[in-house]
Amino acid sequence: MRKISLLGASGSIGIQTIEVLRQHSDQFQLLAFSVGGNIKVAQELIQEFSPHVVSVQSKEDCETLKSQFASTDTRFVYGEEGLIEVATLKEVDVLVNAVMGSVGLVPTLHAIENKKVIALANKETLVTAGHIVMEAARKHQVPILPVDSEHSAIYQCLQGEKEKNIETIILTASGGSFRDRTRQQLEGVTREDALNHPNWSMGAKITIDSATMMNKGLEVIEAHWLFDIPYEDIQVVLHRESVIHSMVEFHDTSIIAQLGTPDMRVPIQYALTYPDRLPHPTGKRLNFMEMGKLHFEKMDFDRFRCLQYAFDAGKAGGTMPTVLNAANEIAVEAFLNGRIEFLTIETFIEKAMSRHSNQLNPDLQTIREVDLETRNYVRSLID
Amino acid sequence: MRKISLLGASGSIGIQTIEVLRQHSDQFQLLAFSVGGNIKVAQELIQEFSPHVVSVQSKEDCETLKSQFASTDTRFVYGEEGLIEVATLKEVDVLVNAVMGSVGLVPTLHAIENKKVIALANKETLVTAGHIVMEAARKHQVPILPVDSEHSAIYQCLQGEKEKNIETIILTASGGSFRDRTRQQLEGVTREDALNHPNWSMGAKITIDSATMMNKGLEVIEAHWLFDIPYEDIQVVLHRESVIHSMVEFHDTSIIAQLGTPDMRVPIQYALTYPDRLPHPTGKRLNFMEMGKLHFEKMDFDRFRCLQYAFDAGKAGGTMPTVLNAANEIAVEAFLNGRIEFLTIETFIEKAMSRHSNQLNPDLQTIREVDLETRNYVRSLID
Repeated sequence: MRKISLLGASGSIGIQTIEVLRQHSDQFQLLAFSVGGNIKVAQELIQEFSPHVVSVQSKEDCETLKSQFASTDTRFVYGEEGLIEVATLKEVDVLVNAVMGSVGLVPTLHAIENKKVIALANKETLVTAGHIVMEAARKHQVPILPVDSEHSAIYQCLQGEKEKNIETIILTASGGSFRDRTRQQLEGVTREDALNHPNWSMGAKITIDSATMMNKGLEVIEAHWLFDIPYEDIQVVLHRESVIHSMVEFHDTSIIAQLGTPDMRVPIQYALTYPDRLPHPTGKRLNFMEMGKLHFEKMDFDRFRCLQYAFDAGKAGGTMPTVLNAANEIAVEAFLNGRIEFLTIETFIEKAMSRHSNQLNPDLQTIREVDLETRNYVRSLID
Repeated sequence: MRKISLLGASGSIGIQTIEVLRQHSDQFQLLAFSVGGNIKVAQELIQEFSPHVVSVQSKEDCETLKSQFASTDTRFVYGEEGLIEVATLKEVDVLVNAVMGSVGLVPTLHAIENKKVIALANKETLVTAGHIVMEAARKHQVPILPVDSEHSAIYQCLQGEKEKNIETIILTASGGSFRDRTRQQLEGVTREDALNHPNWSMGAKITIDSATMMNKGLEVIEAHWLFDIPYEDIQVVLHRESVIHSMVEFHDTSIIAQLGTPDMRVPIQYALTYPDRLPHPTGKRLNFMEMGKLHFEKMDFDRFRCLQYAFDAGKAGGTMPTVLNAANEIAVEAFLNGRIEFLTIETFIEKAMSRHSNQLNPDLQTIREVDLETRNYVRSLID
């Protein structure tokens, strides 16, 4: 039995992680999890999995659950301390980090220090503090297993291969909801237009990030850290079917690719079973005959400016990716709340990056300060 | 320095193997080779590589070379004994078996017994005696590295993976010269039509085998033996671009594929450098943007009957694949010599298989007898 703790059980990745655990209940045991404020999900999961520890965001929710489940052995905790407790529970083998936003960083670092295998779905952890996280992972010899279709694909393609032989990492991008629109046609698009992703069913924030291509930009920065690859050797190819999830080109011109139907449970399960694989009986197999064709197009960096900003921020390094990410989070939130236009997302990011004095090799405190300062700045642009 | 011996230096794969050795002359040393009757190639290679041993087909050619190169240290040998000497030379690390036809079998078995790594381009070795060769390889713990774009692709896709997790092996087929013709349109096609392969530049025999789809059929049987996979779990997909060289689907629905431009030097070099890779500076990198689309179609077993015969022969096992292969060799030779029609190739194979009483688990002597008997029978159909 592999013992699992899960940060972010009520989010899109969290829910699909639970599905994987259910599918292989003889292989996995859910020992601890966190939900933000979704008490209903917490109640259901406690009844189903009888976990040792459950963390929620607020003290009030924690007290509510404590009294509701007074007769169980489950311990209830809350806040950042609670997340750390879930992440570091002694008996746990694998931490699945599926929380959204920068709140995932500190618990992950604690889990690494406690030698947990990390299944990482939280982008901000690597985008803002890739240098700290990967250094910690090396020091404690902990694998960071990506839970993201693209990075999981690359991780799978690199099995049995040597990193010195990599020529290029090729990230595929579906192009998101607006891939066939010109910049003119992006003016005045609605929240509902943007949330209509052609291939993947995901959370609202990541669906908007797909439409702006910021999602791919964040993935480029993640790939840089996960695979220790210079930005010059990371390519993005528009591939509308999302069938090839990503590829690695080696210096002998050979390319290894990972393919499949769009199903996040596959990379989640791979991270939980690595280096082995388990069957995925409820998964849909790819049918090449039905599919017929796969398309590939050049990425237009003028059309998708957020992708260019992400490459710029990644190459600049230091605190610049934190600015990129924080500005994007606040701008996307404002767009989802109907307070700014779609194209204003990139305008705000560009503004935040332009005014920032980059600080190289930042510590956690500096990253937090820059993150907060950027959020306040972008909020000031909205009001 | 990895020390190489090469059976079949003057054939298509042999010539490209030499190109790989030239490209990395600091990594490889050609210690021994064989040519059939192509003395000119032998002379050039002796001058360039100063090998320890050279084998030719006839005693006369052997004597000619001996007197021409009397001042060198090169030893000259001939016939099957000569091939065995090349295959088993003490100092050699890797044997590249690139001869055509069943003549490659016995030297390969001798090389395995002498613990040489086998880079195998000779299809007949596995098609007719897969059970003997793979058993010997297991016993002597020798890797059999495929030199064939499809099997090399599968081998690459399986790195770091467990065979127990394989769901399906998916061999891609370009469809050969006649992929867009109906059966009616195959009547009366000429040798020249058939030799005009759309993607790969190869020898005459294998180009005809691509047009009849027998090449894919032989590859199915090879894949069965190389990867220990039941025929039910081997699929063939028509993929006209030959960009995806083959794929492996695992039981979690994840598919790993190997892609590249059509360049036989890539699988040759991979077999010579395995488990490492070296750069391939003269290779052409795949450009997804130029390529635009990849197509996949269902294989038509009525249209490509040789593929069905190969599955039938493989599933029957025993001496049946030997009959399939021997009948095909004689029929293709007759077609290339203008003595039979294109569609008669499959008629002769079908006749040879129908009349054969299958013998299970045959030894080498039985395989040779069945091979000879089948050839004589098919020749009798021609005259």
